[in-house]
Amino acid sequence: MFPWALYPGVKVRAWGYNGQVPGPLLQFTVGEKVEIVVHNQLPQPTTVHWHGMAVPNDMDGVPGVTHRAIPPSGHFTYRFTVTPQMIGTHHYHSHVNDDFQVDKGLYGPLIVDASPVKAQLKEIDALYVISGFKIGGSESENAFLLDGKAYPQAQALEVPLGATVRLRLINAGAEERHVMHLHGYTFRIVSLDGNPLKNAIDANTVTLGPSQTADIIFTANNPGKWMFHCHVLDHTINPGPYGDGSAAHMVDMGGLVTFVDVVPHMSSKQIVRHRG
Amino acid sequence: MFPWALYPGVKVRAWGYNGQVPGPLLQFTVGEKVEIVVHNQLPQPTTVHWHGMAVPNDMDGVPGVTHRAIPPSGHFTYRFTVTPQMIGTHHYHSHVNDDFQVDKGLYGPLIVDASPVKAQLKEIDALYVISGFKIGGSESENAFLLDGKAYPQAQALEVPLGATVRLRLINAGAEERHVMHLHGYTFRIVSLDGNPLKNAIDANTVTLGPSQTADIIFTANNPGKWMFHCHVLDHTINPGPYGDGSAAHMVDMGGLVTFVDVVPHMSSKQIVRHRG
Amino acid sequence: MFPWALYPGVKVRAWGYNGQVPGPLLQFTVGEKVEIVVHNQLPQPTTVHWHGMAVPNDMDGVPGVTHRAIPPSGHFTYRFTVTPQMIGTHHYHSHVNDDFQVDKGLYGPLIVDASPVKAQLKEIDALYVISGFKIGGSESENAFLLDGKAYPQAQALEVPLGATVRLRLINAGAEERHVMHLHGYTFRIVSLDGNPLKNAIDANTVTLGPSQTADIIFTANNPGKWMFHCHVLDHTINPGPYGDGSAAHMVDMGGLVTFVDVVPHMSSKQIVRHRG
Repeated sequence: MFPWALYPGVKVRAWGYNGQVPGPLLQFTVGEKVEIVVHNQLPQPTTVHWHGMAVPNDMDGVPGVTHRAIPPSGHFTYRFTVTPQMIGTHHYHSHVNDDFQVDKGLYGPLIVDASPVKAQLKEIDALYVISGFKIGGSESENAFLLDGKAYPQAQALEVPLGATVRLRLINAGAEERHVMHLHGYTFRIVSLDGNPLKNAIDANTVTLGPSQTADIIFTANNPGKWMFHCHVLDHTINPGPYGDGSAAHMVDMGGLVTFVDVVPHMSSKQIVRHRG
Repeated sequence: MFPWALYPGVKVRAWGYNGQVPGPLLQFTVGEKVEIVVHNQLPQPTTVHWHGMAVPNDMDGVPGVTHRAIPPSGHFTYRFTVTPQMIGTHHYHSHVNDDFQVDKGLYGPLIVDASPVKAQLKEIDALYVISGFKIGGSESENAFLLDGKAYPQAQALEVPLGATVRLRLINAGAEERHVMHLHGYTFRIVSLDGNPLKNAIDANTVTLGPSQTADIIFTANNPGKWMFHCHVLDHTINPGPYGDGSAAHMVDMGGLVTFVDVVPHMSSKQIVRHRG
Repeated sequence: MFPWALYPGVKVRAWGYNGQVPGPLLQFTVGEKVEIVVHNQLPQPTTVHWHGMAVPNDMDGVPGVTHRAIPPSGHFTYRFTVTPQMIGTHHYHSHVNDDFQVDKGLYGPLIVDASPVKAQLKEIDALYVISGFKIGGSESENAFLLDGKAYPQAQALEVPLGATVRLRLINAGAEERHVMHLHGYTFRIVSLDGNPLKNAIDANTVTLGPSQTADIIFTANNPGKWMFHCHVLDHTINPGPYGDGSAAHMVDMGGLVTFVDVVPHMSSKQIVRHRG
């Protein structure tokens, strides 16, 4: 449990892995033997579920069924071998009291590769974890985040002109579906839930229900600052005194808004969001 | 109208077909001449709509347009011949005052086969009807059911290790979309709305809007008890004093939760959910 | 700003393009040079975003980023050349204070063709813009419209028996997803977001999140009046004293309901909804 700033002026008490929201990016390769020790410093029992990954049943994180929930101050060691079934974009999250615990920040991204990958300047491999918080006593999600931050704090994605971009999207929120839309481009949806589509889908929006992931790709051949946002328009507003806006009061952009900034010249050191 | 137990301690007054929620499973074969007499014992007019099936227009169940609604104490005989267009997983439901009548229980599953099928031990053909009730005076769905029961009353699906499982899912609820997720497996979405996909989609979640159906298949080669649940996490909680949970109060799993129990040895008599 | 009748007895103050909701249908052909002057007669700044179309960055309509919002009484000229990337079914809409402005009526349909098309009697090319208003002080959409009108005011689609129908659907609403269902037919989803699917999907429902478009086709070989409606059943009710209905009070069909009327004989003059 730690303080976490969502956007300017709003800080919440978050529950998260390793003191951050989302938790750290885990990257595994097929054949690897994974061992992760989870120390529970929360006031409630918790578990970790490896969503989309066929781990042995006793490592699956369903409390009272596959193993006992980890009590406060307790710990548990998750162990599994990475298999080809696990290749792709996934996430991990709590499976205890989960509508609450997940929306406090207990999730993180996880990528499995067939074999080790090497970053290349012209191939950007970036990701955004989309999530929600319930703030101000709300019973439903009302603050929406990209990598733990709402616009204008959400980090933009800078890419060099001409690069091939793979953007991995993970909806780690507990309740809401999001319809992510990129301006200035038709992208290709190549993977859903971590699984390659036999026939990729060309689109400018991709719908992500809770827990769903998608990989989209595009070639950054249209220069400029292109908005990337959820098209459920009340997900692009931070909670405030003027609600969702009116004729009397305009509201600023917030929540699930960021920009893909396609710039002519860029060195590999400037590519801050590359997953490698 | 009859009393119907949703989960331990909660019983509602349901409206349903033949005194059950969902209504009885109807199974037809192409070429069959169907004749179904509906006696209306409700206090309101009603009709039956054969969703996804191109019946003759005067059998379509739209009140005041394709035929007069069946008045209380009245009856109507639906008659149609089963055509190849109807093959697949469908459902039937009321089309009168329907946001209310459907969420009282007036729906049921319907499967059409090209020709008669015979159950085989290594091929499980099971189904779940997903639905919602509005309880405690709620204006929106707040209790969610698998085959008319919420967890922990929802029936588990036991399958023998190695079996090929076809799981037919029908969202018969009036309002909410559900994101059904199976642990421990990648499944294949082979059919949507009763129609085979030209290219099946591999996934671990399947999204079902109101009235949508999906057939998913997987080979039960990963032993254990695997959770199968909606990943909209407030759909996995039964209405209660602690809402959706908090730091002070944990809530139990409920609603759209069940388990696929993959067991080593199993006789055909033990397969209770086979549709045949 | 102008008065706009949603359904019998309910008139709202709308904001729209050219005094209508939705705005006028724009039709372009590849190679065309488009020039559109927007005069802002609203009490707030506004912009126009050409959704799904890779226009030059300074024509993209994102206020304060790609260009300054058009102030009240100001104007801006949007200029771009139509490219092959733009072919398909799209829409345009405001991108300022947009959860409010869009749900006041600031959107319109837009179709781009590879080359000029000529209407033919046996090929119906029709469209419906689906949208939502927030009426009676609601903070979320509660009145739902087809081409700016709720049932029973929404216009029906009359087609001659045997015709091939392409129905373009645009969800221009700000918040809700819709699950459009056609009775009496299996249709083919051939295009999403304006992009042809490599493998068309056969279905009887199509889900449209905010801003998403779909083209569906079917051959009108089943005569009769076939309901076409959203299967989120509280989207088929106009706001009223009896809410979503009850055992004591039935509610009439409203909102996202219309009919496809397949009639034996029809002259080309009678086809009122053809886009040409």
